[in-house]
Amino acid sequence: MIGPEVEELIRMLARLPGLGPRSARRMALHLLTHRQEAMVPLAEALAAAAAAVRTCAICGNLDTTDPCAICANPARATGLLAVVEHIGDLWALERTGAFRGRYHVLGGTLSALDGVGPEDLHIPALVGRARPPEVGEVILALNATVDGQTTAHYIADRLAGSGVAVSRLAHGVPVGGEIDYLDDGTIMAALRARRPAGQVS
Amino acid sequence: MIGPEVEELIRMLARLPGLGPRSARRMALHLLTHRQEAMVPLAEALAAAAAAVRTCAICGNLDTTDPCAICANPARATGLLAVVEHIGDLWALERTGAFRGRYHVLGGTLSALDGVGPEDLHIPALVGRARPPEVGEVILALNATVDGQTTAHYIADRLAGSGVAVSRLAHGVPVGGEIDYLDDGTIMAALRARRPAGQVS
Repeated sequence: MIGPEVEELIRMLARLPGLGPRSARRMALHLLTHRQEAMVPLAEALAAAAAAVRTCAICGNLDTTDPCAICANPARATGLLAVVEHIGDLWALERTGAFRGRYHVLGGTLSALDGVGPEDLHIPALVGRARPPEVGEVILALNATVDGQTTAHYIADRLAGSGVAVSRLAHGVPVGGEIDYLDDGTIMAALRARRPAGQVS
Repeated sequence: MIGPEVEELIRMLARLPGLGPRSARRMALHLLTHRQEAMVPLAEALAAAAAAVRTCAICGNLDTTDPCAICANPARATGLLAVVEHIGDLWALERTGAFRGRYHVLGGTLSALDGVGPEDLHIPALVGRARPPEVGEVILALNATVDGQTTAHYIADRLAGSGVAVSRLAHGVPVGGEIDYLDDGTIMAALRARRPAGQVS
């Protein structure tokens, strides 16, 4: 459109998650018309974050330090590991403020179709970490998808007999959810896991 | 979440058009997990485009040259000016390949409410450009919104008596559009501007 620099920028923006060619063009245009206030600072913020951030060798989290702030925090329970698929899941759990243990980021789920095996997923590292007495419980905080649950089953099998308790997140009606809009599987899981009325959580 | 660099990056991404806090977080995470393939090249592409691009002093287009490639192209008709609100509209017209004249970018629409007057909009520059014999026709390619049409009327008034023909884009049923889903105003405009059947365009 207006020179190879802008074509290249639009092409790169269009590859970001959630953006297509149209929204990438709109974003490029917004940036080009706000060069000093938005475009140059964004370029600098990207470069600064890219230079500062590294992967935690213990849990796979991203942070400006290695080990990450969570692994290095003596106030976090060392004996409780939450296993998540992606760093975004770790961020979501952290936002709740309800989990005070540590994490293990798998980097994805097992998938025979895509040729993703246990050694592609930091599962051997998890098996190495999850040993008593250092670790007492592993919470499988994986997505309630077929791939997530397949991976959860595989990990539970691998940890069977290790002496570490293995749990998973509860299934049920999401808070604020309407039963009429839920799928059958969720309703059945919520029925099976029903709790005495009046008891909270 | 993970250091001030990443907080700052998410804050800046969330201010881009079409992104909210959630999608900005997802985008930041994608970039952070693809630092060498996506994040560093994007930072460089942004900086390169910001440094290369300037505003055309004649028409208000963005390009790596001033005057822009359209204003400098001797094959484009000098006598025909399309007046657009924003550079995105100019890009949209260029994508059709159907317009071979030149442009004048207003930079917005008149708005009494927001205190936008003619001098804020490059309208004086348009009145200065749109003189015979250099310019024979001005096409008002403004949005079919209240503000766009108010601005179009104002410009048509200013150019009345200048000897320059003033036209506007046709209203009607969008190509591929379904009448059942159109607003009354569009249907009425399409009825009023009906053409003999069998005639194309």
